[in-house]
Amino acid sequence: MRTSQEYRERLFSMKRNVYMDGELVGRDDPRIAPAINVISLTYDLAHDPQYEGVMTATSHLSGQRINRFCHIHQSVEDLLDKQKMTRLYCQKTGGCIQRCMGIDAMNALSVITYDTDKAMGTEYHQRFLRYLAYFQENDICANCAQTDVKGDRRKRPHEQVDPDLYLRVVEKREDGIIVRGAKAHNTVAPYCDEIIVTPTRFLTEEEGDWAVSFAIPADTDGVYLSCRPAMARPRKKLHAPITTYGDVESFTIFDDVFVPWERVFLCGEREFGGRLALMFALFHRHSYTGCKPATSDVMMGMAALVAEYNGIEEVQHARHKLVDLIAVAELVYAAGVAAAVTAQQSPAGTYIPDPVYCNVGRRHAGLNIYHEYEIVADLAGGLPATLPMEGDFYHEKLGPLLDKYMMRNPRISAADQHRCFRALSDAICSGLAGLLQIAGLHGGGSPVMENIATLGFYDLETRKNIAKHLAGIPLD
Amino acid sequence: MRTSQEYRERLFSMKRNVYMDGELVGRDDPRIAPAINVISLTYDLAHDPQYEGVMTATSHLSGQRINRFCHIHQSVEDLLDKQKMTRLYCQKTGGCIQRCMGIDAMNALSVITYDTDKAMGTEYHQRFLRYLAYFQENDICANCAQTDVKGDRRKRPHEQVDPDLYLRVVEKREDGIIVRGAKAHNTVAPYCDEIIVTPTRFLTEEEGDWAVSFAIPADTDGVYLSCRPAMARPRKKLHAPITTYGDVESFTIFDDVFVPWERVFLCGEREFGGRLALMFALFHRHSYTGCKPATSDVMMGMAALVAEYNGIEEVQHARHKLVDLIAVAELVYAAGVAAAVTAQQSPAGTYIPDPVYCNVGRRHAGLNIYHEYEIVADLAGGLPATLPMEGDFYHEKLGPLLDKYMMRNPRISAADQHRCFRALSDAICSGLAGLLQIAGLHGGGSPVMENIATLGFYDLETRKNIAKHLAGIPLD
Amino acid sequence: MRTSQEYRERLFSMKRNVYMDGELVGRDDPRIAPAINVISLTYDLAHDPQYEGVMTATSHLSGQRINRFCHIHQSVEDLLDKQKMTRLYCQKTGGCIQRCMGIDAMNALSVITYDTDKAMGTEYHQRFLRYLAYFQENDICANCAQTDVKGDRRKRPHEQVDPDLYLRVVEKREDGIIVRGAKAHNTVAPYCDEIIVTPTRFLTEEEGDWAVSFAIPADTDGVYLSCRPAMARPRKKLHAPITTYGDVESFTIFDDVFVPWERVFLCGEREFGGRLALMFALFHRHSYTGCKPATSDVMMGMAALVAEYNGIEEVQHARHKLVDLIAVAELVYAAGVAAAVTAQQSPAGTYIPDPVYCNVGRRHAGLNIYHEYEIVADLAGGLPATLPMEGDFYHEKLGPLLDKYMMRNPRISAADQHRCFRALSDAICSGLAGLLQIAGLHGGGSPVMENIATLGFYDLETRKNIAKHLAGIPLD
Amino acid sequence: MRTSQEYRERLFSMKRNVYMDGELVGRDDPRIAPAINVISLTYDLAHDPQYEGVMTATSHLSGQRINRFCHIHQSVEDLLDKQKMTRLYCQKTGGCIQRCMGIDAMNALSVITYDTDKAMGTEYHQRFLRYLAYFQENDICANCAQTDVKGDRRKRPHEQVDPDLYLRVVEKREDGIIVRGAKAHNTVAPYCDEIIVTPTRFLTEEEGDWAVSFAIPADTDGVYLSCRPAMARPRKKLHAPITTYGDVESFTIFDDVFVPWERVFLCGEREFGGRLALMFALFHRHSYTGCKPATSDVMMGMAALVAEYNGIEEVQHARHKLVDLIAVAELVYAAGVAAAVTAQQSPAGTYIPDPVYCNVGRRHAGLNIYHEYEIVADLAGGLPATLPMEGDFYHEKLGPLLDKYMMRNPRISAADQHRCFRALSDAICSGLAGLLQIAGLHGGGSPVMENIATLGFYDLETRKNIAKHLAGIPLD
Repeated sequence: MRTSQEYRERLFSMKRNVYMDGELVGRDDPRIAPAINVISLTYDLAHDPQYEGVMTATSHLSGQRINRFCHIHQSVEDLLDKQKMTRLYCQKTGGCIQRCMGIDAMNALSVITYDTDKAMGTEYHQRFLRYLAYFQENDICANCAQTDVKGDRRKRPHEQVDPDLYLRVVEKREDGIIVRGAKAHNTVAPYCDEIIVTPTRFLTEEEGDWAVSFAIPADTDGVYLSCRPAMARPRKKLHAPITTYGDVESFTIFDDVFVPWERVFLCGEREFGGRLALMFALFHRHSYTGCKPATSDVMMGMAALVAEYNGIEEVQHARHKLVDLIAVAELVYAAGVAAAVTAQQSPAGTYIPDPVYCNVGRRHAGLNIYHEYEIVADLAGGLPATLPMEGDFYHEKLGPLLDKYMMRNPRISAADQHRCFRALSDAICSGLAGLLQIAGLHGGGSPVMENIATLGFYDLETRKNIAKHLAGIPLD
Repeated sequence: MRTSQEYRERLFSMKRNVYMDGELVGRDDPRIAPAINVISLTYDLAHDPQYEGVMTATSHLSGQRINRFCHIHQSVEDLLDKQKMTRLYCQKTGGCIQRCMGIDAMNALSVITYDTDKAMGTEYHQRFLRYLAYFQENDICANCAQTDVKGDRRKRPHEQVDPDLYLRVVEKREDGIIVRGAKAHNTVAPYCDEIIVTPTRFLTEEEGDWAVSFAIPADTDGVYLSCRPAMARPRKKLHAPITTYGDVESFTIFDDVFVPWERVFLCGEREFGGRLALMFALFHRHSYTGCKPATSDVMMGMAALVAEYNGIEEVQHARHKLVDLIAVAELVYAAGVAAAVTAQQSPAGTYIPDPVYCNVGRRHAGLNIYHEYEIVADLAGGLPATLPMEGDFYHEKLGPLLDKYMMRNPRISAADQHRCFRALSDAICSGLAGLLQIAGLHGGGSPVMENIATLGFYDLETRKNIAKHLAGIPLD
Repeated sequence: MRTSQEYRERLFSMKRNVYMDGELVGRDDPRIAPAINVISLTYDLAHDPQYEGVMTATSHLSGQRINRFCHIHQSVEDLLDKQKMTRLYCQKTGGCIQRCMGIDAMNALSVITYDTDKAMGTEYHQRFLRYLAYFQENDICANCAQTDVKGDRRKRPHEQVDPDLYLRVVEKREDGIIVRGAKAHNTVAPYCDEIIVTPTRFLTEEEGDWAVSFAIPADTDGVYLSCRPAMARPRKKLHAPITTYGDVESFTIFDDVFVPWERVFLCGEREFGGRLALMFALFHRHSYTGCKPATSDVMMGMAALVAEYNGIEEVQHARHKLVDLIAVAELVYAAGVAAAVTAQQSPAGTYIPDPVYCNVGRRHAGLNIYHEYEIVADLAGGLPATLPMEGDFYHEKLGPLLDKYMMRNPRISAADQHRCFRALSDAICSGLAGLLQIAGLHGGGSPVMENIATLGFYDLETRKNIAKHLAGIPLD
Repeated sequence: MRTSQEYRERLFSMKRNVYMDGELVGRDDPRIAPAINVISLTYDLAHDPQYEGVMTATSHLSGQRINRFCHIHQSVEDLLDKQKMTRLYCQKTGGCIQRCMGIDAMNALSVITYDTDKAMGTEYHQRFLRYLAYFQENDICANCAQTDVKGDRRKRPHEQVDPDLYLRVVEKREDGIIVRGAKAHNTVAPYCDEIIVTPTRFLTEEEGDWAVSFAIPADTDGVYLSCRPAMARPRKKLHAPITTYGDVESFTIFDDVFVPWERVFLCGEREFGGRLALMFALFHRHSYTGCKPATSDVMMGMAALVAEYNGIEEVQHARHKLVDLIAVAELVYAAGVAAAVTAQQSPAGTYIPDPVYCNVGRRHAGLNIYHEYEIVADLAGGLPATLPMEGDFYHEKLGPLLDKYMMRNPRISAADQHRCFRALSDAICSGLAGLLQIAGLHGGGSPVMENIATLGFYDLETRKNIAKHLAGIPLD
């Protein structure tokens, strides 16, 4: 297992292909640093003995102890542990741990490469296993680039005015393929080792060229990472962990990129393109049953803290609102537990969480994210939006006055009240907060997508038969 | 295990103490029959080999195969099986299976009698085990009479103008005790073998007399069952299972009732009175994670069926509303699964489901019950409320006209459309529907109660510490 | 203006064409009596001087004082008065006043007959005015039969397997027309004088035969009223106004009914068929901004009363829930006020309320109806569902015991507590309650219909231009 | 009426007492400029003939045409016009017009100074009228500083450890008073002419010192404005109106400030302190029935625009969500209309909008604000959160690639799609968006406050009597 130092060193030695606001920048640009801090944690805690078995796992390939973010789930317990790990990490960073993308893509590939081979006589699975060995050995941090830019939403890939609006194979060579297209919303891409590409939707018979999956180093020629950083407002003096974490999103362009065959895991088997899209989404939604409860943990911690500081923690409506947050957290987590407990083992050996529970869990999180912000804002009052800027608190004349007038619960120091409200301002009234709201709604698929997936998997017919029986209508 | 025939025979041989609308009636009164049909099913299916191990269990006392409704949970699997059994039964009856009260009370007593003995040096647990042996051997159907009538809600039991407004011990004799009071909302009491009484809330030091628990035959002298039946509108010709099931609620008065010591399981240990109240509520809320999903199953079956008959099953808003129902069902069920998977074994050996998951699960069901009816009504349209009466469909002139004008989806016969809407009328537009709405909200404790319980068990301090850490506030 | 006695006398002298449960019954059948009581109130209070100018109006035709239910709106004040009248009546009956159908149909006809004549050179408006004179002079109570049975919802009228599934003209004669079809959900039809028929939806060019509107006596040959009564459970001794009111719904079949030309107001002008459907719906939705607040008044009165009796009226969550009810009532009412204040005068002189406000108002009521029942149930607790039957309270032994154990707030007598909970049981746990829920959702058009209507009338383009302006996008 | 040029000139000539991040800055600091642009609009459009009578009014004092923001409401029409004006202005700035504070404070003072004089024999009203003349003549832009910092929320003003936590009179002199304290959430204070101070809550008999109201120039000695600016992310090339508007919030400290008697409008009449607090809140909540619909207009415009660009404007769920936004806007606006139509004239002559409608309207806006953001985010997808930074679109290599891959609806240019999503990013994913969410929840009083106010004014007793009548319970 790598150390975070090794992760950073490798990162900083990569070729430059990260762009920010019109400039080509290095991966050591300070605007990326808060995001790198997030990923670094996943290397640091894996070495911490207290997290042994949660943050780490035993590779079924090598028998070695590996970072769990590189592991293929071999049991119900693995799924439960991944969920637990995800929640723990996200509690510590106050938001998305980001590295789940890699594990979710790798697990999806483990299942679908096998199934494709069985059906089509291809040899993707062995290729994947070699890549997995490399992945585990080098403790790779990977992005999964799934969401195509999609152009006109009413049209299918092959119907677009510009066929590149879904990433596709434009040439097949003896040594590999050339791909062209763009993927949106790629968290982690500017500070990961590798980018794993998967299709984004079901594909029709005409759409074999769009059925492509592969993994390449993030600094491969022809890959352009157009980036947008998000972080809390930087502090000058009142330092706090919440301001040290952030994320960077990439709009990733593949401008005729070459991929060697040993890194291609699907190429033209259009039926399996859709299944891979769905399988990644499924594992990723199971990850959300771990991370979203952590987001709720953070929100409810903030809410309970400010309720205490404001002196309203015993007021009934404040208490009921805390339960609203608890209920969101624990129902989503429970859905993940139920998905793990009822998991199915795929022919490849990988454990696949139950799709209905994953989808209703992720959906519940998505439907409640804005309401969670509303609750925290409700209990905090208006100060997160109107808190004077940090410097005023250190001004000779103003500082003592602000300290005097910030006082609430007299047992809490002015400094702690200041820290509380500044953190709240970061958490619910900043560009980062806006990003987390939108990610909480859409990340991993928005509720509308989960509606479709839920109906696709649910046994509604049995329920109709229950109704027919009760009504005295003969069953078909 | 008894047969339903044996259950009925014993029932019909009991002393008369059931009242309806001013009359003393026998337990064979036709208004009770639909409710008896519900309980009978729990005897019938226990003999059906396909439900072996779900509807039945192996007694840890006798090693015999027993009805699971008489079993003390010995493992996580037992809890999962009880949840599964409950859902299955309720799917079949279209509503509450009712007999869960007995198993929940017995499991709570198994835990608390043991704990009381350890703390107080009493001998309730052995007494309970003897009763349990009798209970299992005779395949007893029991009511749990918990909810006191409570008088003025602002006052504690000992502060009431009339101390009997919470059931209490009014005399202790050598051979037993005399109790006085009344219990409300007693489903199953008029057609069960035994009534188990538990306290309803935490008790203060002055309130030892109210800390009493016992079990007695339902026809014991001094017990008055003032009853209210609920069932679907009876049919003349268009028979359907939905009209064969119902329930009867009892307002049960204990007018100086004698209870022999061997049937007394708590008497004066006021601290354990509150714990028993809570423990029964906990097991009962876990039961709700099985039964409420079945209620949702029935509702979604009805909704999907009428959407098909109305020809709108592919319309987006209809599909999204079905997912609303699915999500309620499966999130509540998932909460029960998570509660079972994280169960704790009590010193008495009984497995206790996790209280946070039980409470957020039951709460979610309660918060959604009216919304579920709204969805079914939405997809059904107004006809369940305005459907002509049954006889008109069999009238020489009107019948054919109604058949002609009832037609919707032309693939579905007029008769089936009629059956569908008449069942919907029973399900969402009848006194029984009103009862099920209220039971869905309040049964086993309303959401406000679950808020209190959730906060009582939840580790909010850890979440505040997460917030403090992120904000840079020193932990205490 | 007629007296209620005159209304009844005329009613009871009509020909028999009302069916219930397979029997042809007289309009004096006791199951219809509670509904007749509702309509009678609209005759009685019109003679009460304190309601002068609200319950009555001055006819713009005759200059006579008439019942406002016969009036064509001549001003903004008329619309405000109709809204006020509707709320007052519904507060008194605890539910729908029912007679609004007639006034809404007549106002719609006043507008559309005029517009049709202008566009098509027909002479419907004079014919309508003659009918209006008769209507006002005889203080007619009318049903509006709008909703066709509609068959397969995916198909238009002319595409149905059976063309009669939307009511249509099957023959035109010199002296009149023959119509065939059926109309559903006809409140008031079995106890009104006249039935006014209007189309139910927009019609295509092929659908001239379905563009028909007329008015006929409710006992015309060929009209079959297949009825379903709804009322609170009858009382033996504990009489209360809530049990004296009810409604009867009719499934009305027109089996080749002859309509003389002087009663035909549209016949083949298919474009105006759709406009008439919409215009009736608009006036009717404005009526809902008067009646639904009254329903909320009743619900909040019940909720506040039971909160007081239960001693929780000062508890925060109870208070917040009362505000939920107040807010529903007053936002819906405010929408009606705004619709009146911004009304437009049609070429015929009739004032037409603003469609956007009418629709968002009615929609808000529909979206909240089940939630209102949930709140009342929440504050009432389970007793409305489990209250012992009336007779037990008068039983020699049980009566005093029930009185003893019903006691809550000691300032309130047992009898009043009994009355309160029995009324609640009628209001939220009865077949009538189920009907009112469904009527509250679907009556006058369900929220999905109001979505369509709102979008049809709303100036969304202006809002898009606001957004374009802010974004710096050139306006088209 | 002043021009915006005159407003700015006066502003820039004021003494320096504005602080930002530890620095004393001039009012011409560029971080304040976007907020000044907002206020400038209220001077510019008042001179635009097309807004004559809406943006302007006729002074009842002088008979002169004045800016409506300086007017005392003399009729129902004035209230309707103020509401209309507010909506128009806020549509143009895309958010809060801010200057309503002044008009609302002045109208409240017009009522309460009169009432105080009548009850207490004081002479505040004449003093107020002289100030009003000055106010109208100089077209003053005023802040209303109401919300005290409030310290421990469980304690009253006189119970606080530090009595200054509510602003109070610390000395009365012959020529005026000395006040000390701090007011939070003061929008407009750093770029207005005058600050009007009012109490924040009801006051007890011990709290006369806290019953103080006055108006002073914003740069009075001893006034410290600790400020926090909020604006959209600045643009380099892709200029758009949305980025030119913003606000600055002040935490305003009154460090022993002298106020001459002619500017004191309440001093010690503690009963009227509470009434003034409530009266300002009432007028301000009526303002919200104008501004919040404009916020919804902007949101729905953005939502409809992005739905069109994404090609989903005809999808049912997108359409239904637009209606959700329309319904929020128009129900809130309707509440303001109803409040105006049912306004009462105070003894001073000022028209006071109905408090129930104002409160349920403002409450509805507050309860829906986060949901509105959720809807826009839902229809926009994730791109507002992950949109590449502006500069990349102008980079030689990246720019054309981003243009290629941004394409959606092929009828819309890449540049317009870019503008649309950048505006969305400002609108829902920025610090400014966070501020608008919190302001939408808490500004003018959060829903919990409106619950209290609604119950305080609502005639619940009449509704209880309706329920009693229906239940057969004798009225008291």
